[in-house]
Amino acid sequence: MPIATIKLLEGRTDTQKKKLVETVTKAIQDAIGASPENITVVLEEMQRTHYAVGGIRASDK
Amino acid sequence: MPIATIKLLEGRTDTQKKKLVETVTKAIQDAIGASPENITVVLEEMQRTHYAVGGIRASDK
Amino acid sequence: MPIATIKLLEGRTDTQKKKLVETVTKAIQDAIGASPENITVVLEEMQRTHYAVGGIRASDK
Amino acid sequence: MPIATIKLLEGRTDTQKKKLVETVTKAIQDAIGASPENITVVLEEMQRTHYAVGGIRASDK
Amino acid sequence: MPIATIKLLEGRTDTQKKKLVETVTKAIQDAIGASPENITVVLEEMQRTHYAVGGIRASDK
Amino acid sequence: MPIATIKLLEGRTDTQKKKLVETVTKAIQDAIGASPENITVVLEEMQRTHYAVGGIRASDK
Repeated sequence: MPIATIKLLEGRTDTQKKKLVETVTKAIQDAIGASPENITVVLEEMQRTHYAVGGIRASDK
Repeated sequence: MPIATIKLLEGRTDTQKKKLVETVTKAIQDAIGASPENITVVLEEMQRTHYAVGGIRASDK
Repeated sequence: MPIATIKLLEGRTDTQKKKLVETVTKAIQDAIGASPENITVVLEEMQRTHYAVGGIRASDK
Repeated sequence: MPIATIKLLEGRTDTQKKKLVETVTKAIQDAIGASPENITVVLEEMQRTHYAVGGIRASDK
Repeated sequence: MPIATIKLLEGRTDTQKKKLVETVTKAIQDAIGASPENITVVLEEMQRTHYAVGGIRASDK
Repeated sequence: MPIATIKLLEGRTDTQKKKLVETVTKAIQDAIGASPENITVVLEEMQRTHYAVGGIRASDK
């Protein structure tokens, strides 16, 4: 029943996203023995104006 | 003070979303006796390329 | 595939929580026609020291 | 290592968002002594049709 | 109506948490002009075994 | 800068959790080419009374 939510900066290709959900699902399966059909992965893209480290947004670098 | 966040696949009509926030608010009120004005509901739409079960995205089925 | 996450202040009984997941699942089913087996509900309890409106925590009222 | 996620209604200007991540980063730094480079802030805009209090969406007021 | 959720490592004092919700509420008010009574802040403590950067948990350093 | 949050039912061993953050970090690195030091993983354990599919909690099965 694991639910993984991955926030990432916008700009990844569809191929990268497809690979991402596949590899993360496999990683969860390998680490804790969950059945794949019980593993949910959700991607959330962040705009560069909506993400900051140290108070500086990715868009302002 | 309950805060409900509902992730759902994109594609629901505005009427469905309106009904969804109404019925969920009512459900929380009925179940735990919270006052409606203290109940917040947030909808988050997921693109079909951003949601996967078993490593297969909704867009790839 | 809806995933509902409900944050609520600690202190509800187990019976209230059971009823809450049941009524919210039913509400989502009624509003958007999702099959129950595709509806996930997660409860997250907040300590009163961890929740504030207007800068005042529930524990400090 | 604090990660702050701020949901806000759509419609703020880019200048407001920039100021928001700056002031919130500073606030976290002041309150708990975290180093700025360890503080992450993520903004999430909510559509007015996706946010409701008391079962009434911001868009329906 | 902003809702700020702040994840932080366990171990802060109650005084620090109280100050944190106050300063973050003030920061949001200053940056975007939201009324304090419309600003919600939720703290979420992370165990050191539940937080990792670069694959290394805070507890394993 | 990806931030992965993984909700899982309580009861995993510390060794499983350690392996989980390692394999998920590696999976994200492989899929999208992010540097490990930019990848954050947060685990969130759900009590069996707080997680339901189809309106039935894990604790009530």
